[in-house]
Amino acid sequence: MTRTSEALVVGVDFGTLSGRAVVVRVRDGAELGTAVHPYRHGVLDEALPAGAGGGRLPPDWALQVPDDYREVLRHAVPAALADAGADAADVVGLGTAFTACTMVPTTAAGTPLCELPGMAERPHAYAKLWKHHAAQGQADRINALARDRSEPWLSRYGGLISSEWEFAKALQILEEDPEVYAATECWVEAADWIVWELTDVHVRNACSAGYKGILQDGSYPDAGFLAALHPDFASFVPDKLERTVGRLGDRAGGLGARAAGWTGLPEGIAVCVGNVDAHVTAPAAGAVEPGQMVAIMGTSTCHVMSAGHLAEVPGMCGVVEGGIVPGLWGYEAGQSGVGDIFAWYVENQVPPAYHERARTAGVSVHELLSELAAEQRVGEHGLLALDWHSGNRSVLVDHELSGLVVGQTLATRAEDVYRALLEATAFGTRVIVEAFATAGVPVTELVVAGGLTRNPLLMRIYADVLGMPLSVIRSAQGPALGAALHAAVAAGAHPDIRAAADAMGAVDRAVHRPDPAATRVYDRIFAEYRALHDTFGRGGNDVMHTLRALRRSAVEARESS
Amino acid sequence: MTRTSEALVVGVDFGTLSGRAVVVRVRDGAELGTAVHPYRHGVLDEALPAGAGGGRLPPDWALQVPDDYREVLRHAVPAALADAGADAADVVGLGTAFTACTMVPTTAAGTPLCELPGMAERPHAYAKLWKHHAAQGQADRINALARDRSEPWLSRYGGLISSEWEFAKALQILEEDPEVYAATECWVEAADWIVWELTDVHVRNACSAGYKGILQDGSYPDAGFLAALHPDFASFVPDKLERTVGRLGDRAGGLGARAAGWTGLPEGIAVCVGNVDAHVTAPAAGAVEPGQMVAIMGTSTCHVMSAGHLAEVPGMCGVVEGGIVPGLWGYEAGQSGVGDIFAWYVENQVPPAYHERARTAGVSVHELLSELAAEQRVGEHGLLALDWHSGNRSVLVDHELSGLVVGQTLATRAEDVYRALLEATAFGTRVIVEAFATAGVPVTELVVAGGLTRNPLLMRIYADVLGMPLSVIRSAQGPALGAALHAAVAAGAHPDIRAAADAMGAVDRAVHRPDPAATRVYDRIFAEYRALHDTFGRGGNDVMHTLRALRRSAVEARESS
Repeated sequence: MTRTSEALVVGVDFGTLSGRAVVVRVRDGAELGTAVHPYRHGVLDEALPAGAGGGRLPPDWALQVPDDYREVLRHAVPAALADAGADAADVVGLGTAFTACTMVPTTAAGTPLCELPGMAERPHAYAKLWKHHAAQGQADRINALARDRSEPWLSRYGGLISSEWEFAKALQILEEDPEVYAATECWVEAADWIVWELTDVHVRNACSAGYKGILQDGSYPDAGFLAALHPDFASFVPDKLERTVGRLGDRAGGLGARAAGWTGLPEGIAVCVGNVDAHVTAPAAGAVEPGQMVAIMGTSTCHVMSAGHLAEVPGMCGVVEGGIVPGLWGYEAGQSGVGDIFAWYVENQVPPAYHERARTAGVSVHELLSELAAEQRVGEHGLLALDWHSGNRSVLVDHELSGLVVGQTLATRAEDVYRALLEATAFGTRVIVEAFATAGVPVTELVVAGGLTRNPLLMRIYADVLGMPLSVIRSAQGPALGAALHAAVAAGAHPDIRAAADAMGAVDRAVHRPDPAATRVYDRIFAEYRALHDTFGRGGNDVMHTLRALRRSAVEARESS
Repeated sequence: MTRTSEALVVGVDFGTLSGRAVVVRVRDGAELGTAVHPYRHGVLDEALPAGAGGGRLPPDWALQVPDDYREVLRHAVPAALADAGADAADVVGLGTAFTACTMVPTTAAGTPLCELPGMAERPHAYAKLWKHHAAQGQADRINALARDRSEPWLSRYGGLISSEWEFAKALQILEEDPEVYAATECWVEAADWIVWELTDVHVRNACSAGYKGILQDGSYPDAGFLAALHPDFASFVPDKLERTVGRLGDRAGGLGARAAGWTGLPEGIAVCVGNVDAHVTAPAAGAVEPGQMVAIMGTSTCHVMSAGHLAEVPGMCGVVEGGIVPGLWGYEAGQSGVGDIFAWYVENQVPPAYHERARTAGVSVHELLSELAAEQRVGEHGLLALDWHSGNRSVLVDHELSGLVVGQTLATRAEDVYRALLEATAFGTRVIVEAFATAGVPVTELVVAGGLTRNPLLMRIYADVLGMPLSVIRSAQGPALGAALHAAVAAGAHPDIRAAADAMGAVDRAVHRPDPAATRVYDRIFAEYRALHDTFGRGGNDVMHTLRALRRSAVEARESS
């Protein structure tokens, strides 16, 4: 039997397709129980829910239903407590981690607009998931204007704002559905909305406010800048966005009566300010010192690292004071497609014989392809890919880019392309690591976390491509553990995040070591990757944008015919 | 019942995987019966036959077993006669068509070396199929030397000799297996070897001698040139290659006793000189006038066209006086991968759901993908491909190039890539058609032939991409009909090829007409294709060659470890 008479905390991680709760011992970070609850509506990327008329969505949209998040509190938290055999009375704090930038348009009371009468059939009334990429036009204009006006905050984001972030997504609503925009009294990060639901207190967290909300040195983009984008956008910040900002690990409020009822946890226990799934993982891996980069590898990959000084890294997602650990500058970069590229490939490009063989062997198709690809020498498949099937977040910050594979012959097999895609994402990480080094904030240790760390071939490829050993987070549920760790700080059980990371986080060092011979060959292939990266990503050949524009025209012509 | 009391001819078409015989009425070209016989050994591209030790072959090799060709004579010809209900006594001539450049190393008596004691285990003793691409290094050196020496024949081949042709393939033998080279008393086009087997007469046909054997204005490359490639290559032409050249449609000899026994045809009937499957198809489509280009679309595509004058078309395969029709200059171009790219894709990149759906619907996967892709508007899939999975024959003449697909997103489905590959081959044809126009030999009519003409989507795409109507050969077995037509000329049943084409060939004009709106969009996509074509095909970005070199090194390292 598990001892439950010690202080416990609960961390809840809201992912792209499901939410996960974990019950953690404050003293040493032991994970005593866990439960997952899938979102009933998943990701709305083709149509609204049938109950809301099922209207079709244009390409690049990705919405969610906010009540699916509440369902995680109702189901996964009690289930995790039961799994731990824990007494809810021992729980002293609750913390959350969320995808970002995921945004909820709400009333002043925090009610999501899609829950209002007559609003369920309007796409813009739903939560916009991080990977909603339909605001690229708005992002492009924000970037062009910021460059023209030499806005001081632009360099904090590597010179480019993403279409995924708060301002681009809000401007899209204003321009495409002004009524929904007018009805949006609060434009809230989902990370903060869930804390609002838990505590009845609306506070912005320093992490997403800084990385996704362009809050730098205490200020947002000014009214003159916003007015130049659209006259009705001028007062967006005071009207809909601005709010008290809480430091990471601070107590947002006490658990409210309604949320206590949902979760079965004691009313009034500490709930910490919201946090972003990637950033919250760094302390869970004990990686809170300058130069320790944590790569959270799943559907997409997020890279977070702290440093003692401010530097401008071209194409990074952002640098925010206290964005990961209060007192240090937190850097973020990312790859917008990693695991989802591999999943897309297995779903769409692998012939029946492999599926049958995997079934017979009792392994997944991913495992089979990885086994077959692992037998190859570096360079043997003769392929090279660009990993931009979901666009490029760092260092190009362009979601209109797309994938590329070169080198196919009539002898190319499924495992060849699969391996080339794995390698492409490793090259993408190397571009990011080199950008940080060039900018004067070198990566001294790479710690990997997330579901993809379970693929030994992928780990070997990353170590070989990067030419550096990989450390691996010990927890299989880093964001939830990180959320719990922050809850322990908010509850006063540890004095600060560094201390909590020391007590509750854990990492295995240099688990995957590079093979120098493989690294030498990868150096040559990486030079080719870099050339393609710059040709197709920096305008030398603009075919990806042309194809996307033609695709958009063709889809529009179909819909209007 | 079919009338058989009229004069008949038999045409035999030796393809890549099988041979086909057709019985044709001399008067009007009516095809009375047909039969196909598959080659028992198919294409040897991974290993020698098990009976010959099964030794592994390196990448890019493609061999055949010559006795498989004799088997076609033994089986398909009698079967076609039976299918026609024909009396063999009514047959007045036999003609052949063959893949090219397919080469057989033989003794002075015409025995293939692989049939000699102790030779069956030596790869170089077998027939080298047209798509044997392992002599690229030799071809590169032939081209470089010819440029250095300003050899006058080089411009007749668009400035580049192919690795598929007689000299490159012979030089590879000399350099890799000098004993086999020494034992090769005759280096014979398979097109001529089969006629030798039929008639006991060894005569070179003007078509393959010109296009594949660098015979121009009555001369081959001289001894000085060949010695500069390799000292022992100096006397290659007189020692192994040179032979009387017969005009197309001429009688090579009478059917010999042995071959009469195989086929059941009367001994002594006319057998015409050998011919190449593509070129022989032009008269079968009635396309013997200047400006009528015939595209024979199958595994690969071959383009043949006659013109009244000599022009130099960069990147064409060749121009040969009397190469298609005596009295005109015959032009040839080609795409080395077309149908085999589609087949590779269906085999290697289409997921199980499509296979199941096709099975349920009782259609092939090709048909299903074509149906789904046909619903799209031009540009809707957002993809662009380079059709170089089997290298590029025209206009780049480089078999070390490889495939490329750009534009993939997580929404890309199997039918999208399939359509992009169909389109890529259409763009490849457009590059060729434009090269001819630019060189002053415009294509005034495009006639399509071959198995791929049965795909209506492919035909629509070609018409739209080219912006010109497509005429379609009426016969489904153009090369065999063309071979029969030449046999009728050799037998004296028609005065010449033009007259025979008029009587026996047939075409349906402008069957597929372009949609101007589609052509406008394709014009934009073609501009992008052209840009990628020039970047990756002309050295702007040399990644394809680098990847191939790395692949070769990796394979060699594996084999030597």
